[in-house]
Amino acid sequence: MGLTLTQKILSHKVGHPVHAGELIEADVDMVLGNDVTAPVAIREFKKIGVDVFDKNKIALVPDHFVPNKDIKSAEQVNIVRKFAREYGIVNFFEVGQMGIEHALLPEKGLVLPGEIAIGADSHTCTYGAISCFSTGVGSTDMACAMATGKAWFKVPEAIKFNLKGKLSKWVSGKDVILYIIGKIGVDGALYKSMEFTGDLSSLSIDDRFTIANMAIEAGAKNGIFEFDEITEDYIKERANREYKVFKADEDAIYSEVYEIDLSEIKPQVAFPHLPENTKSIDEVKDIKIDQVVIGSCTNGRMEDMKITYEILKGKKVHPDVRLLIFPATQDIYLESIKKGYIEEFIKAGAAVSTPTCGPCLGGHMGILAKGERAISTTNRNFVGRMGHTESEVYLASPAVAAASAIKGYIASPEEVV
Amino acid sequence: MGLTLTQKILSHKVGHPVHAGELIEADVDMVLGNDVTAPVAIREFKKIGVDVFDKNKIALVPDHFVPNKDIKSAEQVNIVRKFAREYGIVNFFEVGQMGIEHALLPEKGLVLPGEIAIGADSHTCTYGAISCFSTGVGSTDMACAMATGKAWFKVPEAIKFNLKGKLSKWVSGKDVILYIIGKIGVDGALYKSMEFTGDLSSLSIDDRFTIANMAIEAGAKNGIFEFDEITEDYIKERANREYKVFKADEDAIYSEVYEIDLSEIKPQVAFPHLPENTKSIDEVKDIKIDQVVIGSCTNGRMEDMKITYEILKGKKVHPDVRLLIFPATQDIYLESIKKGYIEEFIKAGAAVSTPTCGPCLGGHMGILAKGERAISTTNRNFVGRMGHTESEVYLASPAVAAASAIKGYIASPEEVV
Repeated sequence: MGLTLTQKILSHKVGHPVHAGELIEADVDMVLGNDVTAPVAIREFKKIGVDVFDKNKIALVPDHFVPNKDIKSAEQVNIVRKFAREYGIVNFFEVGQMGIEHALLPEKGLVLPGEIAIGADSHTCTYGAISCFSTGVGSTDMACAMATGKAWFKVPEAIKFNLKGKLSKWVSGKDVILYIIGKIGVDGALYKSMEFTGDLSSLSIDDRFTIANMAIEAGAKNGIFEFDEITEDYIKERANREYKVFKADEDAIYSEVYEIDLSEIKPQVAFPHLPENTKSIDEVKDIKIDQVVIGSCTNGRMEDMKITYEILKGKKVHPDVRLLIFPATQDIYLESIKKGYIEEFIKAGAAVSTPTCGPCLGGHMGILAKGERAISTTNRNFVGRMGHTESEVYLASPAVAAASAIKGYIASPEEVV
Repeated sequence: MGLTLTQKILSHKVGHPVHAGELIEADVDMVLGNDVTAPVAIREFKKIGVDVFDKNKIALVPDHFVPNKDIKSAEQVNIVRKFAREYGIVNFFEVGQMGIEHALLPEKGLVLPGEIAIGADSHTCTYGAISCFSTGVGSTDMACAMATGKAWFKVPEAIKFNLKGKLSKWVSGKDVILYIIGKIGVDGALYKSMEFTGDLSSLSIDDRFTIANMAIEAGAKNGIFEFDEITEDYIKERANREYKVFKADEDAIYSEVYEIDLSEIKPQVAFPHLPENTKSIDEVKDIKIDQVVIGSCTNGRMEDMKITYEILKGKKVHPDVRLLIFPATQDIYLESIKKGYIEEFIKAGAAVSTPTCGPCLGGHMGILAKGERAISTTNRNFVGRMGHTESEVYLASPAVAAASAIKGYIASPEEVV
């Protein structure tokens, strides 16, 4: 019985073929926590009373409420900081050296193809973009993994997304994943792998990060891309250790197979209050906005900055709109300065901040008042996600978000460029 | 009986000579409020039931908890935003177009020499740097001024600071004002004008903004500099209306006169928990720090960015320290990018954010946990000012703050450059 890509990775790790539904325990290559989840994990870890399994295989990234929003968040980060110092955790990222965890870990080569990464954050599934099996876990599982280097999994079955065609101008990974979630629903891939295969050549690595990142928004255990030249190009300058590439068996069994023609996908907008409430941009009319957020673990990477630049260049943010831009890591911030993007963002009237998850989760740096409406490149538009329970979040790509910032209503990039 | 510079301005406004202790009502040229104080003023203003006295002479600058920290702060800004739209307030500054109020108003030419500016914020005294009479008022006074264009004042007596000599390398306006506050105490100028005269030639306009800004920290009603060529250089490209220059009478009466030799001032550090607890840098030993803040209405201007750059260039922030840098306005941010400063800040490991008062007042973006210690270019180091009541804030110049960020303890610029 053939195995899916995810099952192949898990099988290799446990040393024998594993099948959907099986409960397994496997060695993990990376254990991640942030300022919200790591303090809980650290408390539980200390009850176990052992040293960490590997000082190099734990990443602690305070990114949610940093720079510290308030005394409580400062105390949370301090728990993580003190733990990192006490246990000699190599990959603790202080403010100023950091970025948003799911952008930072691949960027720093801390997760690689064929590996298993778990993180106490739901969007840990992001690293599937580089053919890594990665998934979110609870803080207790994080605690156990810090002690043992192992985690348990129920081997997922998989949905295959067979891609063909090329993305049109102004269409990116965000549109692909919103389109798919619109098709299958927010529980369409419950506890399954979403495996992306076929003609991946028009999907850049950043497109893939965005797509894998939002697999959890369809309920998936993980989202994962087949390794190809584009993956290799990204990995080769980052990997400082051996990694192994896996491929699904030709006779792998999938619970469903979707054929997706990328060339047919138009820019998508997910209406409140679920990522599945998608419409294509030409169905969207007269939706005035108060705020635009470009950034997050979903869409704060170089390509997102580049597209935003192409749309904002020489233009002005609508006077009734505030545009907030968060490069996802310090490296992306730096590169965006060097390329002249940040200069144009500021000239256009955008507020550009150091990396933080901030507004995505209603944390800080862009919270909505009652009745306000935002379009955002983030990943969730649940009730009250970005602030008041009577505010609204529309999800879209950086292209649509930037165009909307100029027009003052949800707009297609075609309207402004 | 001769008049002080402040008394000359006030006399001109009311049309006859006024003297210390007199209660007067005068026309104001600018009325300022922010996201903390304006909502209260707006509520009171609406009770009066009239239109604003002049749509051009009110400035509304949400800067304290922006980008919105939480729902409450979002609602506060929304009150100000809606008021600005309803009443056609010309100088409402949305996030992305803004900056910290006391850096923004002079930069935009909204306050000029010889004018009267009041603001519902204690550091409104900043504009004395350009020979403007400016002072902080309560929200109710702001409300009345928005309706009538007038405010009441008790004419202040004045202390004269007769400056001579030139500032040494790495010594700036912040050291001058800390040195003076160390000398006269936090109530040393209670309800008085601090008038700065003598040889002002080594004090740049940014030095003067910093000095006037902290006049309130000596309890002063205002701090004010004599107009000279340096003032004129700054004003000429910003003023879009006539202004009048005043000078104290030769026989003006001062309650005290201090002779200050600028060449004798060394870099200063104000220890917790009062700005008057100053020591010169060579008396400061072994004070480890957790956080460094460079920015605020006191020290977030171009020269502050330049000095920070000169010290950080090619160096790394100490691994146990987080360095937060906030250019005070969008224009300063932009100019700092163009000059290559921000690139170096990020390379050094600093977190650089869009303008916000944030950490200065314990708002957000850099709050201290219990037991943490910061050195900061801000203006107040009261108990709990930047976070936990058991945290500590040391005040200093950007030069000392940047040097400390590299060393990990409070350090002289001489140690790193």
